[in-house]
Amino acid sequence: MESQVLVIGHKNPDTDSICSCIVMAKLAEHYGVNAKPARLGNINKETEYVFKHLNIEEPELIEKVDEGQKLILVDHNEKAQSVEGRDKAKIMAVIDHHRIADFETTEPLYYLAKPYGCTSTILFEEYKKAGLEIDKVYGTLMLSAIISDTLLMKSPTCTENDVKAIHELEKITGLKADEYGLEMLKAGTDLSTYSSQEVINLDAKEFEKNGKKIIISQVNTADIDDVFSRREELEFAIEKEISDKKVDLFIFVITDIINTNSKIIALGNEKALVEKAFNNKLDEFDSMMLNGVVSRKKQIAPPLLDVID
Amino acid sequence: MESQVLVIGHKNPDTDSICSCIVMAKLAEHYGVNAKPARLGNINKETEYVFKHLNIEEPELIEKVDEGQKLILVDHNEKAQSVEGRDKAKIMAVIDHHRIADFETTEPLYYLAKPYGCTSTILFEEYKKAGLEIDKVYGTLMLSAIISDTLLMKSPTCTENDVKAIHELEKITGLKADEYGLEMLKAGTDLSTYSSQEVINLDAKEFEKNGKKIIISQVNTADIDDVFSRREELEFAIEKEISDKKVDLFIFVITDIINTNSKIIALGNEKALVEKAFNNKLDEFDSMMLNGVVSRKKQIAPPLLDVID
Repeated sequence: MESQVLVIGHKNPDTDSICSCIVMAKLAEHYGVNAKPARLGNINKETEYVFKHLNIEEPELIEKVDEGQKLILVDHNEKAQSVEGRDKAKIMAVIDHHRIADFETTEPLYYLAKPYGCTSTILFEEYKKAGLEIDKVYGTLMLSAIISDTLLMKSPTCTENDVKAIHELEKITGLKADEYGLEMLKAGTDLSTYSSQEVINLDAKEFEKNGKKIIISQVNTADIDDVFSRREELEFAIEKEISDKKVDLFIFVITDIINTNSKIIALGNEKALVEKAFNNKLDEFDSMMLNGVVSRKKQIAPPLLDVID
Repeated sequence: MESQVLVIGHKNPDTDSICSCIVMAKLAEHYGVNAKPARLGNINKETEYVFKHLNIEEPELIEKVDEGQKLILVDHNEKAQSVEGRDKAKIMAVIDHHRIADFETTEPLYYLAKPYGCTSTILFEEYKKAGLEIDKVYGTLMLSAIISDTLLMKSPTCTENDVKAIHELEKITGLKADEYGLEMLKAGTDLSTYSSQEVINLDAKEFEKNGKKIIISQVNTADIDDVFSRREELEFAIEKEISDKKVDLFIFVITDIINTNSKIIALGNEKALVEKAFNNKLDEFDSMMLNGVVSRKKQIAPPLLDVID
């Protein structure tokens, strides 16, 4: 038997990273690859809702990989977002919907990226091309991932392909995206049991450009003020993170999933970049309202990365 | 009408880069994109044979692209191998069969890579998936590219998918790969009209790793000794290139397409890397015989890049 290939999403996994690694592992098995899904961190409450709904187990947690370990990456490619030990591992394939950066191999590989709202939408199309049946469980995994990444189709990252996949998956699963999806998203907004340090790390992604280290962390909420009321303790946790990880800029994004707006808090030596990127001033709480902004990938990271030069 | 997207292969274009950009442009048009093929340099004699056979015109030559120009890249991704001005252009899609390195975008894109022998094999499969008819002209372009990149299926880069595509394309075009392909490959081995400087640049690819600049240049021949008889003038041209372009290592690969061996000449401050990579000594002419080695991508670049650390 060929050596086992691990299928992994990004650090601080979100619903897409967790669901897509399971969905991808099955597709790889279909093509004769001995594949196993794994996760790089705890699942969040939104993803927990999905697994409780399906009554299935979450993928195994791994912290690092050994030299020569074969990997399939889903939902990410940048090194800073990936597993420890990746430099000495062998990346066989990548399925992703993000920009490509800080990614290098010495040999050719499979790489499939599409500018869709969600990795699972790409996988949904690959299942169809492969003639691989999508059952209720895998359909729900895909549907959950797409609803999560597109904020129930409200995010500007949502494409026609995502909408089409959602509607087809509603038929397969018998679920209504509006009802099931809103419950799932709401489950993810419950931050009450998390410490501030946990809150700022729930969905944090690291970016590197021109030697600058940027972390953009995002939480969903139905009430921005409710999260912002924890501002002081959150700032304290962010300042500690900045100092511990030598971060140049930390942006904490509080996204209102009902009204599709975001409030950000920006800290670090390079916080002026935020003012330049969004052409606006940070207020006395180092915060700024971004109307209509909900997507880190499409609305926050690109203007920021563009002003670093 | 949407702004025109240029479809380009790599610098010092080979038959795959030229044929695939034409083939890709038609596929893009099929998906509603206003696409135009272009080339980054003169076509070589092998490619010339293909265009004479088909009696069609070669793509337009471009030297650089303007800011904001939309691009589709075929057969390459590394910056050093791509068009001038790419940093400020917008890469919409990449179709490639090489390792990924020195490639970065700020936004998501289409990226399709497979570890096949040839870009045109990937495109052949995409035409079939899209239900797009392959006529004799486009079939010949694809067939020529695959024969070129796989050295008539003799290269270790050749996969089952390449072989399958060749056989299907033989039916479509009515050509016999063995006959047509050997004539085409032989046409490419005629170096008699080229100056030494032209010979070493016909199919030269630049690689960067850890700040080291490496050029690997390859020519095909039916007689290694014949090319090697020009050693002195070739070395002179290589030394000039090393000095002009601040190259750390220049490897000139003379590949015998009949017996599938290669002789290399290695020059530059880092020529010891070659001895380390191939575990053998360079002789008094700075040359080394590599038995069974014909593929830069699979047999020369990876061991070299691996010893740079």
